[in-house]
Amino acid sequence: MESGSPGISRPLEPGPFLRGSGRAASVSSLSRAEAGPGLGSAAVAAVLPAGGCGERMGVPTPKQFYPILERPLISYTLQALERVCWIKNIVVAVTGENMEAMESIIQRYQHKGVSLVEAGVTRHRSIFNGLKALAGDQPNSKLSKPEVVIIHDAVRPFVEEDVLLKVVTAAKEHGAAGAIRPLVSTVLSPSADGCLDHSLERARHRASEMPQAFLFDVIYKAYQQCSDYDLDFGTECLQLALKYGQTKAKLVEGSPDLWKVTYKRDLYAAESIIKERISQQICVVMVTKKDEELTGLLEEMLTHEINDVKVTSGALYDAGRDLQQIILEQCYNFVCVHVMNFDFQETQKLLSMLEESNLSILYPVVVVSDEMKLQESLRQGATIIAALIKERKSGLVGQLLVV
Amino acid sequence: MESGSPGISRPLEPGPFLRGSGRAASVSSLSRAEAGPGLGSAAVAAVLPAGGCGERMGVPTPKQFYPILERPLISYTLQALERVCWIKNIVVAVTGENMEAMESIIQRYQHKGVSLVEAGVTRHRSIFNGLKALAGDQPNSKLSKPEVVIIHDAVRPFVEEDVLLKVVTAAKEHGAAGAIRPLVSTVLSPSADGCLDHSLERARHRASEMPQAFLFDVIYKAYQQCSDYDLDFGTECLQLALKYGQTKAKLVEGSPDLWKVTYKRDLYAAESIIKERISQQICVVMVTKKDEELTGLLEEMLTHEINDVKVTSGALYDAGRDLQQIILEQCYNFVCVHVMNFDFQETQKLLSMLEESNLSILYPVVVVSDEMKLQESLRQGATIIAALIKERKSGLVGQLLVV
Repeated sequence: MESGSPGISRPLEPGPFLRGSGRAASVSSLSRAEAGPGLGSAAVAAVLPAGGCGERMGVPTPKQFYPILERPLISYTLQALERVCWIKNIVVAVTGENMEAMESIIQRYQHKGVSLVEAGVTRHRSIFNGLKALAGDQPNSKLSKPEVVIIHDAVRPFVEEDVLLKVVTAAKEHGAAGAIRPLVSTVLSPSADGCLDHSLERARHRASEMPQAFLFDVIYKAYQQCSDYDLDFGTECLQLALKYGQTKAKLVEGSPDLWKVTYKRDLYAAESIIKERISQQICVVMVTKKDEELTGLLEEMLTHEINDVKVTSGALYDAGRDLQQIILEQCYNFVCVHVMNFDFQETQKLLSMLEESNLSILYPVVVVSDEMKLQESLRQGATIIAALIKERKSGLVGQLLVV
Repeated sequence: MESGSPGISRPLEPGPFLRGSGRAASVSSLSRAEAGPGLGSAAVAAVLPAGGCGERMGVPTPKQFYPILERPLISYTLQALERVCWIKNIVVAVTGENMEAMESIIQRYQHKGVSLVEAGVTRHRSIFNGLKALAGDQPNSKLSKPEVVIIHDAVRPFVEEDVLLKVVTAAKEHGAAGAIRPLVSTVLSPSADGCLDHSLERARHRASEMPQAFLFDVIYKAYQQCSDYDLDFGTECLQLALKYGQTKAKLVEGSPDLWKVTYKRDLYAAESIIKERISQQICVVMVTKKDEELTGLLEEMLTHEINDVKVTSGALYDAGRDLQQIILEQCYNFVCVHVMNFDFQETQKLLSMLEESNLSILYPVVVVSDEMKLQESLRQGATIIAALIKERKSGLVGQLLVV
């Protein structure tokens, strides 16, 4: 549940407090080519309610800001939406107290096309504020009204373009659409005395997940008409579209990836999934030409250690030209092959380069090997490197491991 | 969903195929002192359906046998039930093809009081087979009928005694009881055309979790009366008790720990939780008396590295006497402090001792440090050890890390 602290006095429906991240306003008209396949020229925006306080998590930080590999969860979700080129604007609703933190996240991870509005005291009020900002009828709004709006959760970072396209396409046809999943548990209806009244047939019900999508006019009018009770206690946007917009949402079967980070165990799961994903590319950096043969051997061994890994090599002596390209490809793993008696400053140069790139958000790992014993201990070294890369334990960052 | 392959012909209700694990049969009469607080002299048994094929997991191994830190998930669940001294028998229902694997799990991890029956083609049929074995009316059954039976899932390893006691106590009073949790997602009822018919008010419904408990006669009679349709398509034991036993189950609020390992992400979460739990005790083993001072320093640093860790020391030269005690306390982390020029066979001795104990089911970690540089690099060493212990990556097992 998303709700403000009861002790804090806050207007029930604050006007949307817009702060663009610079590039949002510059996107004005959309060419057909920019829209998703099958979407025609439909302008699509997304609203991300992120005002929750994480009470179910058992951790002090609201879950959307919880760091996973040192990067806040919401930044992964924004990244997932940004990768979809036909989503033009993303409006995030955050509480006043988290506004500054959210702005610095946008800046640090260079999120584009993101605007912020102030969250309401409930999830529905936050979404309503996001929609108001997109409606273009507010004094300071620089956003233009989209044809279709996606509503997603800040705490569902693994959403894929595929399901986003499905709900948007279905929303264009039906006015509203939402992702669903089979129920994991049977649903019970308790009686007033805390005993079982009846159980629901599991096969005839579905769990409502995110993303959902709506024709903007349908959902905006529904929010404008709905009662305070709906805004304060409702949990389902599809229900609002049905009740106030006479629109029966199309239900779209989603993948297991759509799950919502709710409990602490979900953070563990999210961390493991992210580790697995970013372990799939390694760049082996040679400090001198002399290392080429060893690099080849190491590449071979790493390919053997990590499933489906792509290993590329770059040369540091080459003024980092190769490296820049690899960095652009968002490789998160750099292994520096470096002989003991060589100038360590060269390795420092690599570290600086990585720090200046955006990749410094995750860990670079440095392994220094002794030239003399290298051949014999290379296999062991590869095992250790693979483990370090898969685990990404902050305690191992910057450690000098001599194999 | 738990179901057999459609292509395999198997009798619908095979007679319970009982195989005791040796000690099950020896427990016959129960003293009052052995029962749980508030349970009087009630005899309590548990049934664990484990015949599922793991189709939702996306992995070839059925989820209950999936290895977490190399140990099958079901073994953790059995361990959780075994820790509760007032649960006298545990009947596990497994498919014929997994019977042998299950027997070797019981042997390897020394599970006690566990009997096996053959699973049915659905979850309800597996539970029914388990109950038949406990009813004592089968020709070969060596089990005696309990007053209360717990039904749990093989894939919910984090169940605590607290909630088991609550459901058993409530079952004694009401005839049936089950753990519930708030719904994470809103539940939708789709219409025939795949659109939203209506959504359920989230606050008025609950997710049915496990464990559940029943007066044995209530649930056994319910199973004996219920239809093939119930056995093949039903999902809820509490519903059977209501429909055929006129027993309204008491619903007991459970903790988030009760969640069911269903998807691959749940395996990741389970692994992280288990890693966290077993990282809380470290034993630092000295090879020579000379290492005592260093050991003290290392202890201090490890305490600083890992939250809430308990560090104890044992001396290997003392014929492993201290160690035996520490092993008995189920410490899973051993760090050997050892100077480079010392006889490595001493460390081998430690490894053999750990291998012979039951702790070899998890990883021992060996760190060898160079005496000369030890003081200066000790802090670094502690960081690495902590990371290794927290991560328990199999790739690091047996590695020689020279700090």
